[in-house]
Amino acid sequence: MRTGITPGEALRTILDETPVLAPETVAVREAQGRILAASVVSERTLPPADNSAMDGYAVRVADTGGAGPGSPVELRVAFEVAAGGAADADVGPGQAARVLTGAPIPTGADAVVRQEDTELEGDRLRVLVAPAPHEHIRDAGEDVRVGDRVLEPGAAIGPPHLGLLASLGRATIPVHQRPRVAILSGGDELVEPDGDVAGGRIVSSNSYSIAAQCREIGADPVYLGIARDTPEDVERHFRAGLRADVLVSSAGVSVGDRDYVRGVLEKLGCQLLFWGVKMKPGYPLAFGRFGRIEGSGGESGPLVFGLPGNPVSAMVTFEEFVRPALRKMIGHRELYRPLVRARLGETLRKKAGRLHFVRVGLAREDGRVVASSTGNQSSGVLRSMTRAAGLLIFPADATELAAGTEAEVQVLDPDFLASDRPGF
Amino acid sequence: MRTGITPGEALRTILDETPVLAPETVAVREAQGRILAASVVSERTLPPADNSAMDGYAVRVADTGGAGPGSPVELRVAFEVAAGGAADADVGPGQAARVLTGAPIPTGADAVVRQEDTELEGDRLRVLVAPAPHEHIRDAGEDVRVGDRVLEPGAAIGPPHLGLLASLGRATIPVHQRPRVAILSGGDELVEPDGDVAGGRIVSSNSYSIAAQCREIGADPVYLGIARDTPEDVERHFRAGLRADVLVSSAGVSVGDRDYVRGVLEKLGCQLLFWGVKMKPGYPLAFGRFGRIEGSGGESGPLVFGLPGNPVSAMVTFEEFVRPALRKMIGHRELYRPLVRARLGETLRKKAGRLHFVRVGLAREDGRVVASSTGNQSSGVLRSMTRAAGLLIFPADATELAAGTEAEVQVLDPDFLASDRPGF
Repeated sequence: MRTGITPGEALRTILDETPVLAPETVAVREAQGRILAASVVSERTLPPADNSAMDGYAVRVADTGGAGPGSPVELRVAFEVAAGGAADADVGPGQAARVLTGAPIPTGADAVVRQEDTELEGDRLRVLVAPAPHEHIRDAGEDVRVGDRVLEPGAAIGPPHLGLLASLGRATIPVHQRPRVAILSGGDELVEPDGDVAGGRIVSSNSYSIAAQCREIGADPVYLGIARDTPEDVERHFRAGLRADVLVSSAGVSVGDRDYVRGVLEKLGCQLLFWGVKMKPGYPLAFGRFGRIEGSGGESGPLVFGLPGNPVSAMVTFEEFVRPALRKMIGHRELYRPLVRARLGETLRKKAGRLHFVRVGLAREDGRVVASSTGNQSSGVLRSMTRAAGLLIFPADATELAAGTEAEVQVLDPDFLASDRPGF
Repeated sequence: MRTGITPGEALRTILDETPVLAPETVAVREAQGRILAASVVSERTLPPADNSAMDGYAVRVADTGGAGPGSPVELRVAFEVAAGGAADADVGPGQAARVLTGAPIPTGADAVVRQEDTELEGDRLRVLVAPAPHEHIRDAGEDVRVGDRVLEPGAAIGPPHLGLLASLGRATIPVHQRPRVAILSGGDELVEPDGDVAGGRIVSSNSYSIAAQCREIGADPVYLGIARDTPEDVERHFRAGLRADVLVSSAGVSVGDRDYVRGVLEKLGCQLLFWGVKMKPGYPLAFGRFGRIEGSGGESGPLVFGLPGNPVSAMVTFEEFVRPALRKMIGHRELYRPLVRARLGETLRKKAGRLHFVRVGLAREDGRVVASSTGNQSSGVLRSMTRAAGLLIFPADATELAAGTEAEVQVLDPDFLASDRPGF
């Protein structure tokens, strides 16, 4: 097992072991946010027939040449085509057909005159504007033809995709499965949020922040609860997560926390690939993978992330390593947070050796992004994490980032990228 | 009623009428993504007691002066403090106490020596590194003190907030209510996605894309189904939506589509504020509001958006007008999509008079964003909407945007902003 590796080495090791999950078939109405696993080919033509783009009259262009406000052309309205109806009569010479938007164009007609470009008296229609051939007619198949590949693998299913799939009458589509993430924590000092915190006990908050980090990207958290400080209880909890795709432990059940955790993992068949990443917060991160689990159906067992126990260390190591792995499993091609270059609002200092992820607030000043620390950067202080719009990357070898210089920031808060003006 | 107004005028009119919704109290576990409606004040101190940041030994600094690898100081390990335990014994002169990470620091001790900086033989501990006063001790209250305002109104509840709220033992929090959005469409030509499309009938796809647009931002869609082409059925459908916060109609039940829709709305007490916005796609957009609805409890009835019937027009008008209104209701301060300046990959042309929202793909070339049309921009062509990473703003008065010049683009696809590298 390697130890003391760089964040870059850790990430590469993890992604090399991370599979893209197999497809499943889901109902279109449940597919929002999922990633398409195969092409969607249309079995329909959209629109199904030439139809009117306007409320107006279907006419023969040959009849209406020279029509103008001072020289109207008079036609007879022979029939009406309802929007949902079929056009079973023809438009003959000198005739017009009333059409609403979306109504099929009857045979014989080759243009639509807008209602506002006509005058009607009984069934006598005065056309005040000569239409060009094909004007205000939407062609059959303008959007989609039978056999078209309308959506490609890798597409994230959003509102327009759902509208299109509804139009095509599709009931199901193939998408990548969502990873199931088993979450556990451990230690006799931990209680659930409604538990008694007398005598130095603290809430097992990591499980809640980690579950939320999973849900945020569409992974499916399964919380296995708090293991007590015995090898038996720790083993029982890990066993309960062996059918998950990913096992995330923190606080008391990480490799660094209790001597026996590593023994339990090895007994269960976990091969640890590294322990210890040169970063702060979050040095004591472990990663491994289980071999094939009897009866699980999978080719290999879950990936295992042993996150540090401190609340911010757990969140940041999830952010940097578990999140990209889960996004890969889900089928995303872009695995990482948006990056912005930001000017430092203050000078930051540290010792050389570890990469620091600095919790920063972000502001825009004169069109540039300015980053400032959100306060106490101790790995126990969640409060400065709640205020962080981003994580600033303070490289391992650097010892000072001077105020006014630039650094790269991973943007955590999507509202920082949202705009305060519409753009028009 | 005003007509033929600009998109900017339309947006201002809408937001002036849009309330921020009142608070409701929700379980913390259901609060992810919601916007906090009041401060959260802590009733706990976190951490609750001075505790060890490391696995090691709690010692008296006075005892360990001068300790070093060549000159170890020997102490006696008098007792152990478990992580969840209380430290009920004192560390006397010449003594040390075994402490795991998170264990409370016993009285008498004023620093922690890391396990790796010691050697243990029986209860004899050799300290190889002299600790500084307070070293590796996390202070009680370092994160939060009783009475601290830990979260402020307007905060979007994400993973760190949920972790912090769990730590504080909070079960519920006040957040802004989610708007309920009643969605209806109409017309004898429309069927549901599993319906028969023979004879020119088409699927009522707008309801599905609009419902997805609602869910995407955390609003709560209620689909009222397809109204048939009679005033009675249209009235019945609108009545079913009167207790919603927002009513969104499209395709056949918009003000422009059938003559009687406006009459039905006025009969029900809707005041229309405008019809017709100088934009493309989407000119025939109507907006109004209902007066107070008997028995609804609200001060006024729902806002009404009559979207155009064409699939892309419906989506774009939702995007530009309904989405910011819903975000305001939910409590967001930033109402709009991220904006980027993009270089045009091709020349775009149009007539002066209407602002065009052009469906574009976005790519990065040499550090700049390049926008290119996703194809047929007809308002019936959903397919070019599924491929659009953004909507490019082609100003009303402009008639040409030349290839190579820059324009502003609203970014629809969050994955365009995601990064293909982690930043380290």
